[in-house]
Amino acid sequence: MHNITVALDAMGGDFGPSVTVPAAVQALSLFPELKVVLVGDEPSINTQLNQLGYQRSARLEVRHSDRVISNSEKPSFALRNSHDTSMRIAIDLVESENADACVSSGNTGALMALSRFRLKLLPGIDRPALVTALPTVSGNKTWMLDLGANASVDADSLFQFAVMGSALAEQHLGRKPKVAILNIGAEEIKGNDLVKRCAEMLTQTRSINYIGFVEGNELLHDAADVVVCDGFVGNTALKACEGTAQLILDKLKAKLTASTWKGWIARILFSDLITEVKSLNPDQYNGASLLGLRGIVIKSHGSADISALVHAIGEAVHEVKRQVPNHISDRLEAVLLERQY
Amino acid sequence: MHNITVALDAMGGDFGPSVTVPAAVQALSLFPELKVVLVGDEPSINTQLNQLGYQRSARLEVRHSDRVISNSEKPSFALRNSHDTSMRIAIDLVESENADACVSSGNTGALMALSRFRLKLLPGIDRPALVTALPTVSGNKTWMLDLGANASVDADSLFQFAVMGSALAEQHLGRKPKVAILNIGAEEIKGNDLVKRCAEMLTQTRSINYIGFVEGNELLHDAADVVVCDGFVGNTALKACEGTAQLILDKLKAKLTASTWKGWIARILFSDLITEVKSLNPDQYNGASLLGLRGIVIKSHGSADISALVHAIGEAVHEVKRQVPNHISDRLEAVLLERQY
Repeated sequence: MHNITVALDAMGGDFGPSVTVPAAVQALSLFPELKVVLVGDEPSINTQLNQLGYQRSARLEVRHSDRVISNSEKPSFALRNSHDTSMRIAIDLVESENADACVSSGNTGALMALSRFRLKLLPGIDRPALVTALPTVSGNKTWMLDLGANASVDADSLFQFAVMGSALAEQHLGRKPKVAILNIGAEEIKGNDLVKRCAEMLTQTRSINYIGFVEGNELLHDAADVVVCDGFVGNTALKACEGTAQLILDKLKAKLTASTWKGWIARILFSDLITEVKSLNPDQYNGASLLGLRGIVIKSHGSADISALVHAIGEAVHEVKRQVPNHISDRLEAVLLERQY
Repeated sequence: MHNITVALDAMGGDFGPSVTVPAAVQALSLFPELKVVLVGDEPSINTQLNQLGYQRSARLEVRHSDRVISNSEKPSFALRNSHDTSMRIAIDLVESENADACVSSGNTGALMALSRFRLKLLPGIDRPALVTALPTVSGNKTWMLDLGANASVDADSLFQFAVMGSALAEQHLGRKPKVAILNIGAEEIKGNDLVKRCAEMLTQTRSINYIGFVEGNELLHDAADVVVCDGFVGNTALKACEGTAQLILDKLKAKLTASTWKGWIARILFSDLITEVKSLNPDQYNGASLLGLRGIVIKSHGSADISALVHAIGEAVHEVKRQVPNHISDRLEAVLLERQY
């Protein structure tokens, strides 16, 4: 068994070491091949480790950093002033091949800018994209990208997202994934120039199993294995799903926590309903990958709790095992070759 | 009491006269001031009226048309070949002031193109926009536009949507509505140029109560009274909300229809939950207005059933009562004046 080393930005997120340290310790017990480098303020990290009564081992390393990139910093500013920050050091550990992947709950824009600057893009990729696996009604997954790394893109980038998403999904599914473009529904307005041109490109690419357009209401319905869209549309649609699910979940919880006889019976008989509905909320699955880089970078929610961050670390472990960047490179090469001839 | 005449495209939608005729008859009994002109194939309409045992009255008029615009027709083709179609005649009745509003469940693109061509845009408006009122968790409404009339827009149009949405919401609420722009969340990527420029314009416009950006997860959460976005984003976000709500509703319904003792208890405990969740699904509220025209046009879902179409006819009645186009004109004039000085 090969070791997998994950550099964890211990200062990122709303809760810093009080969440990142316990998450690292939990992840170590879950993934026997895992080694974690906790990057951040060493005294704070040690305090947390002592509180947990953690028995030091070679599988957990602490790498001190003096500074933190705040959530309000602009990416351009963060880029110029990243020296000695926990996020920068964690990314650099991947760049220097001292870590296989980096996980951070910190400033999204800074994470993207720094990753791109330090790790560089894969050949053939113009822009990285944030991807996550949405849950679907049948218990499958639909990978959706971009989720906000790019507020606007051109058709070439959207096409590259399709190739990257297809490569990622293929590694999970073990078969050629069905790839679709997110579009608006009315037959008579078949979307903007962007989706039309990308559809044309994908139709001409036989190595991608392009199945056409899907609409916003089909996202959690197994309509495709991979759905591509620009980052503005993807971010908004994903959050619209999450917001709606959360709203209904709150209503359901109110029923199940009522201190009436109805509430008691509901709690005894239907507590599994909460789990079922929760499993359909994309928000439950923490850890979006930044695809298109020469290294593995996982973005965790800023508000991630311990178990959510463990999920994101697990995502990093899986991507390392599956060698996602290499697989994307191979697929890109094949597609570029096909498009040349 | 003034009469309100609604021209109903009797041939539009997936079910034609079998839905439109009963909906017209129901609407007449609901709205005492209403007069309906059913436009379509007279024999088919009469068959339906006879089946319903409808007692003819001056409140229901049938206007024969020979042709129908099919759902698969492109707007440009429909525009050139609209002569004698039910949709065209219904719109023309508004244009000639023989009707106060038009309602159609037919081809969306054709309805928009024909309405724009026949009724013309209000002065100061570059593009019409589809708007609907989303339900919110507190039982209020949030008007969202554009929902797909335009696959892409510029900042001027988005600004005009904000003015139109604000005028419409003000007529409902009786106070100055809070207006927001839909944007992606991450602090560091505050959206694309479109939303940034529109935000700047709205910030400078004191007659609009602009409150800033909202995100996709806030749509059903009372974050604003009016939310503007381009038609691609709006259509996708709305459908994402609808798809998620429907999925969870289906899960709940499965529990409630189980013919086991648990199913029986679930029906006792959760039947009102279904109603509550349904009320949060934007799909339940049929009838989107096409704003920005010199007349009132309501687009109903193609799949609308009788009660959904009655809801859309009701929407037309309310807009006529509130003189929405006039109110939009007034607001636009005020805003243009303000922006000049």
